[in-house]
Amino acid sequence: MTTETIPTALQLRSLVKPEGVLEVTLARVDIALPTDDEVLVRIEASPINPSDLGLLFGAADMASAKVSGPPLAPVVTAPVPAAGMKAMAARIGESLPVGNEGAGVVVRAGKSQAALALLGKTVAVLGGAMYAQYRTLPAAQCLLLPDGASAADGASSFVNPLTALGMVETMRREGHTALVHTAAASNLGQMLNRICQKDGIGLVNIVRKQEQADQLKAMGAAYVCNASAPTFLDDLTAALVATGATIAFDATGGGKLAGQILGCMEAALNKTAKEYSRYGSTTHKQVYLYGRLDLTPVEFPVNFGMAWGMGGWLLFPFLQKIGPEATQKLKQRVASELKTTFASRYAREVSLAEMLQPEMIAVYAQRATGAKFLLNPAKDLESPADF
Amino acid sequence: MTTETIPTALQLRSLVKPEGVLEVTLARVDIALPTDDEVLVRIEASPINPSDLGLLFGAADMASAKVSGPPLAPVVTAPVPAAGMKAMAARIGESLPVGNEGAGVVVRAGKSQAALALLGKTVAVLGGAMYAQYRTLPAAQCLLLPDGASAADGASSFVNPLTALGMVETMRREGHTALVHTAAASNLGQMLNRICQKDGIGLVNIVRKQEQADQLKAMGAAYVCNASAPTFLDDLTAALVATGATIAFDATGGGKLAGQILGCMEAALNKTAKEYSRYGSTTHKQVYLYGRLDLTPVEFPVNFGMAWGMGGWLLFPFLQKIGPEATQKLKQRVASELKTTFASRYAREVSLAEMLQPEMIAVYAQRATGAKFLLNPAKDLESPADF
Repeated sequence: MTTETIPTALQLRSLVKPEGVLEVTLARVDIALPTDDEVLVRIEASPINPSDLGLLFGAADMASAKVSGPPLAPVVTAPVPAAGMKAMAARIGESLPVGNEGAGVVVRAGKSQAALALLGKTVAVLGGAMYAQYRTLPAAQCLLLPDGASAADGASSFVNPLTALGMVETMRREGHTALVHTAAASNLGQMLNRICQKDGIGLVNIVRKQEQADQLKAMGAAYVCNASAPTFLDDLTAALVATGATIAFDATGGGKLAGQILGCMEAALNKTAKEYSRYGSTTHKQVYLYGRLDLTPVEFPVNFGMAWGMGGWLLFPFLQKIGPEATQKLKQRVASELKTTFASRYAREVSLAEMLQPEMIAVYAQRATGAKFLLNPAKDLESPADF
Repeated sequence: MTTETIPTALQLRSLVKPEGVLEVTLARVDIALPTDDEVLVRIEASPINPSDLGLLFGAADMASAKVSGPPLAPVVTAPVPAAGMKAMAARIGESLPVGNEGAGVVVRAGKSQAALALLGKTVAVLGGAMYAQYRTLPAAQCLLLPDGASAADGASSFVNPLTALGMVETMRREGHTALVHTAAASNLGQMLNRICQKDGIGLVNIVRKQEQADQLKAMGAAYVCNASAPTFLDDLTAALVATGATIAFDATGGGKLAGQILGCMEAALNKTAKEYSRYGSTTHKQVYLYGRLDLTPVEFPVNFGMAWGMGGWLLFPFLQKIGPEATQKLKQRVASELKTTFASRYAREVSLAEMLQPEMIAVYAQRATGAKFLLNPAKDLESPADF
């Protein structure tokens, strides 16, 4: 292949049409050849995270999704309810690439030393548009994986590891000493358990099923509360007394759970309070909603005094806030503990075309704990000319 | 009277009994004579603020309150629901004095120069236990009222004025340029309007009745939205676009209003957004709940992206956070604009004994806008020996 030929490759695109239809397709797009400081990565692994599903399917009703087109060029369509169209007003008519992070092999490099140093190496990359066969991006944005690590090992090097580390860092920076995590049996939750056990930080895990509780306990988690148990609120209060946790990260982002956590924190604080405070405990209690597993409205009685806060939490604004130096420290920790603390597990590996098959969507779109998929665009039969 | 005689005077007390009954009485308590740095103030005016009602009646069911005892020594009892008992666990069995702030005449002073300088003067005071005929406290805690100001003029020198100024200060410190206020026709709301008009700050007033909207507009308020109007959400969004307000202070503290404000802020921001952000607007939107006029649960769909926060806001922790120097500046502004910016109006003046009559409780316990009462313990017939 000469540089005059512009090769093309498959890239997944998500489009919300004005008439209220979501359309997900595999586009054939030009591959941008790397400039001096860039590299071209053949993507071989990219996780389908809840944060990706938000962009991929948006507010569409995926239970009513239909798939048409040939097996190698499927077209997914799904209706978008009116309320969803309002929420997505700003993206209507724009065909968007998807996929926060991934890993693969550097198949071409620009002339700079930094770029050339990565040629042939397996790297983890962050920056969107990873649900594609190739991705061109600055060498500085690549994380060189340690020897022996595969693309699958490094596919989730950023979002989950940095989110878990970001939670611990937020806890410290906001003056708390222990934390609560919901949907705690997830890949992210398991990482957080490994971090907290390694660093000696109190962690209260909230799960919804007994088998998830058993799984976390088998991993060494000291405090696991099952939200489906009739004793949940008492169990949670006892764990909060034991750990002193006054900050929580809630992946559900809907329903009553966030308020229950604040209420139990208040109950735990009052158990050790020395005098009556008319406005409740003066210790600040915080819950951050970082996911949307539960799409029902948030609801809570304000029965936890006045010293409380609830809010959204997102990784990228957090990293911006702490700055590049602190971010780099977190990334270095991820690289050095990639196959231990930050190891991820996937239920299944799929190609781009397989990812758009209805039976696959039905599984991974549920965002169920333990059902995370890994996309491998190198598996797709219709691949571009080799580099 | 010689210093050997310990005089006594009436003081209102609130007690939650273990059997689930609230009891409010007028106790006859010893008057503490001032030490060197203290003064003794004859309280002549003290507002019945929503924040006082929280301590006075707690979670008791005041619709079922009964009054017994002679007219000059009434005893109010009311049942406390089980959930309320749980919330008030820390104060059960403790007879508590009530009344955040007030004003009156200094009738005795300690030997220090600061104390003696206040003798015979009318001062505003903050520090609890103001629902009493006399109150002893450090001279440094008194705010000398300007010439010509009565105790009634100075009764509300702290809570409402500092709360209104604290909201504006919070707005500035957290990087916002305009603000939203609910229950905006209240005494506090009217003050906030005067401050914002004077300082040139954009203020969106939310009220629940057309006559309140008319009243605020007659006072010169530029943006008033009636939450009872069918066009409320559109009206609010338009006012948010016009002012750019991204912080709100909500006195209702329950129901759907706080979420509606965040939703309209997001809609306003998206109207001017330049590109699609998958997590919604990246501008931080904040609602502080500083009151509990609405005791129903807070409920909101998370349809305003991820850059948002909700939380409790209380005056005293805020003043602690900004420190004594910044607090003193706010207090000086209150004193110098006491009869203009910070003027309060009351629906009625009552004595301690009158305050405990059922027909009075029925009015002021509603916390209705425009129904604020002023307590004047000097009106009570059974007063102690004169100083």
